[in-house]
Amino acid sequence: MKPYEFTKSQELFMRAAAVVPGGIYGHQTPAVLVPGAYPYFYDRGEGSHVWDVDGNEYIDYICSYGPIVLGHRHPKVEEAALAQMRKGNCFNGPTALWADLAEHLVGITPFADWAVFAKNGSDVCTWAIEVAREHTGRSKIAMAHGAYHGTHAWCTPMPAGTTAEDTANIVTFKYNDLADLRRVAEAHDGQVAGVIISPFRHDAFHDSELPAEGFHKGIRQLCDEKKMVLILDDVRCGFRLHMGGSGEYFGVQPDLSCYCKAIANGYPLSAAVGRESLRAAAESVFFTGSYFTSGVPMAAALACLKELHAIGGIEQMRAMGTMLCRGLEEQSRSHSLPVTISGPPAIPFMSFKNDPGFDRNKIFGAACAARGVFLHPHHNWFLSTAHTEADIRRTLEVTDQAFGEVKQQSA
Amino acid sequence: MKPYEFTKSQELFMRAAAVVPGGIYGHQTPAVLVPGAYPYFYDRGEGSHVWDVDGNEYIDYICSYGPIVLGHRHPKVEEAALAQMRKGNCFNGPTALWADLAEHLVGITPFADWAVFAKNGSDVCTWAIEVAREHTGRSKIAMAHGAYHGTHAWCTPMPAGTTAEDTANIVTFKYNDLADLRRVAEAHDGQVAGVIISPFRHDAFHDSELPAEGFHKGIRQLCDEKKMVLILDDVRCGFRLHMGGSGEYFGVQPDLSCYCKAIANGYPLSAAVGRESLRAAAESVFFTGSYFTSGVPMAAALACLKELHAIGGIEQMRAMGTMLCRGLEEQSRSHSLPVTISGPPAIPFMSFKNDPGFDRNKIFGAACAARGVFLHPHHNWFLSTAHTEADIRRTLEVTDQAFGEVKQQSA
Repeated sequence: MKPYEFTKSQELFMRAAAVVPGGIYGHQTPAVLVPGAYPYFYDRGEGSHVWDVDGNEYIDYICSYGPIVLGHRHPKVEEAALAQMRKGNCFNGPTALWADLAEHLVGITPFADWAVFAKNGSDVCTWAIEVAREHTGRSKIAMAHGAYHGTHAWCTPMPAGTTAEDTANIVTFKYNDLADLRRVAEAHDGQVAGVIISPFRHDAFHDSELPAEGFHKGIRQLCDEKKMVLILDDVRCGFRLHMGGSGEYFGVQPDLSCYCKAIANGYPLSAAVGRESLRAAAESVFFTGSYFTSGVPMAAALACLKELHAIGGIEQMRAMGTMLCRGLEEQSRSHSLPVTISGPPAIPFMSFKNDPGFDRNKIFGAACAARGVFLHPHHNWFLSTAHTEADIRRTLEVTDQAFGEVKQQSA
Repeated sequence: MKPYEFTKSQELFMRAAAVVPGGIYGHQTPAVLVPGAYPYFYDRGEGSHVWDVDGNEYIDYICSYGPIVLGHRHPKVEEAALAQMRKGNCFNGPTALWADLAEHLVGITPFADWAVFAKNGSDVCTWAIEVAREHTGRSKIAMAHGAYHGTHAWCTPMPAGTTAEDTANIVTFKYNDLADLRRVAEAHDGQVAGVIISPFRHDAFHDSELPAEGFHKGIRQLCDEKKMVLILDDVRCGFRLHMGGSGEYFGVQPDLSCYCKAIANGYPLSAAVGRESLRAAAESVFFTGSYFTSGVPMAAALACLKELHAIGGIEQMRAMGTMLCRGLEEQSRSHSLPVTISGPPAIPFMSFKNDPGFDRNKIFGAACAARGVFLHPHHNWFLSTAHTEADIRRTLEVTDQAFGEVKQQSA
């Protein structure tokens, strides 16, 4: 096997490091955290495969941290985007796609009566808590300790640059601990505007944790009892678990739900959908951005959501994710290397047991990357509908070798 | 003259109003504020012209509230965007364009040593104040009273959904009043992390106000004296007044500057550029989003900035804006309707004197729109390099008639 080289990636990183703080910021790229094992820069993508700037090819299970749900350059999405590009993208106001897409989202989301659009997941999560505040006249927001709801100061995982006031109205509880949420709600009785929660716990540097039996139902009941707005942060999971939103998958109907990532197969769009009861508050909370009404991402979103439905994309991703996870489980047993496989099959994650520093995951991830399979060592993975059985079979050949390498290196 | 009809726009608005809070939110679309006179929805654009969904054509002086700086569907920008689209857009990390564009921005901006990229103007303005806080270890930010630096809670023009804590660290001063800024800085001596300011005062529902002689220079001196970070919010003006940033145009070198709008001719991108001294703080303040590293908008930005430079775009916009403003001045005199023409020629605005409710501006704007010229009644206008002398001549024929209509209706 010719080893993967990252000469161009590293050259570009040196250039970037001169003119960008940190070279590459933001998403915890494994290239930074496992130096020499992953590319820094990418050249192109096609379906489930990506190529880095050195020409190395990967079966990609990161899917751009979620957006690529139909595979790169899906023909129907590209065609829809191009058709709108030929007319223009960004105007003095929306195109007809604004109404089309809002109707479509409301149509497929059982609890929703309206939709709004923005660019980032952070945009819609922050706007959602403001709508909850405006609706209730209360200030405090309850969120799970350590959960990620975007980069804004009220919830950023890194405190640099924030002030005490930024989090003064945030109260936290333990994910999957209803009693703890009740404790928080009662400690601030009548002051909590809303609860923001992800469909399952998918914090980076953690095994994923599915909601315990009754957890979401209990939150719903507590929100009804205390008149708090229930906000589902479906930015990461939306349209990978259920076309009606991950609330449908886990059996909970929120009041407001936030989407981004998979909504438009990589075109820049986020959205929130909500109940009629919140419409007046939603009208009042100012929300805009230079590109919020642009047509191309909305054309892409409509094409993406329709195609996901038409091909049974949710079921496909579940099936391929299940095949991957079962294969990994078998390999774990055959190599006598115990692992934890967590998360729903379409958004899986695997970690080695008794490896709190993720050191074995780094060896495993690096060994996979070197053989053309891109798995993240400390962030959940993503399936797309472009992943085929052949992809999974090839992936499992590679992971088998990677287990062997972990065994060898930790012997 | 066949009057413009808005049948399809109104039908779409009714549809949108059912599924989007307020139908259309955000930017103060004149269609909402001057009902029946402007379209709600747009179909396509080409150069300096846009067509609404009813097929009505306009010479467009809003330019999508700034982004369209080379005209809609500029061939070089579209070609660059398409070339990247054929390789993909959104990957697990950046493309080589990340380094190329950062180098380009640093190269054309005299004071800047690094660049970062995001999606919205709000993203970079908020991040900038956080970098100032991290750099200085101070919490307070000084901004001009009533200035717009985005929708985030610390500076939104509408308080709905915000809390007292959101603005607890914001102190305000009067634009163009250095003594007032000094008063604020001294009242909070040692606590003000930074001053954020726009190159000129361009608040909506206001005449624009150029910086008074010595204003920016005085801010610079005060920032140096008090060790405050000087942040230029160049979101609206950037790349319309000077390729090196509007600080160059007005003779001030900030520490950090925020771009959006014109940077990529409508493709979704914002950026901040800053000095070496802020690099460590910039590395520390967490900043990311699902689409921050996407290649297509960066390809568009590089093409846009290079083309603006190559064709002398700044000078073109200045010349065409000057021709427009001079024509309006003459017409104002000939109709004996005194007006205030304000702002730099590339970002001009006109209001009628003694018309605080902008009623005459609404009549004027509606009369122009009905004749195929799109001018905003209460928000500054934008020139693009696609505006030709023929456009301006036709525009002035229309505005002459619009002055006549104002005369008639206010007689």
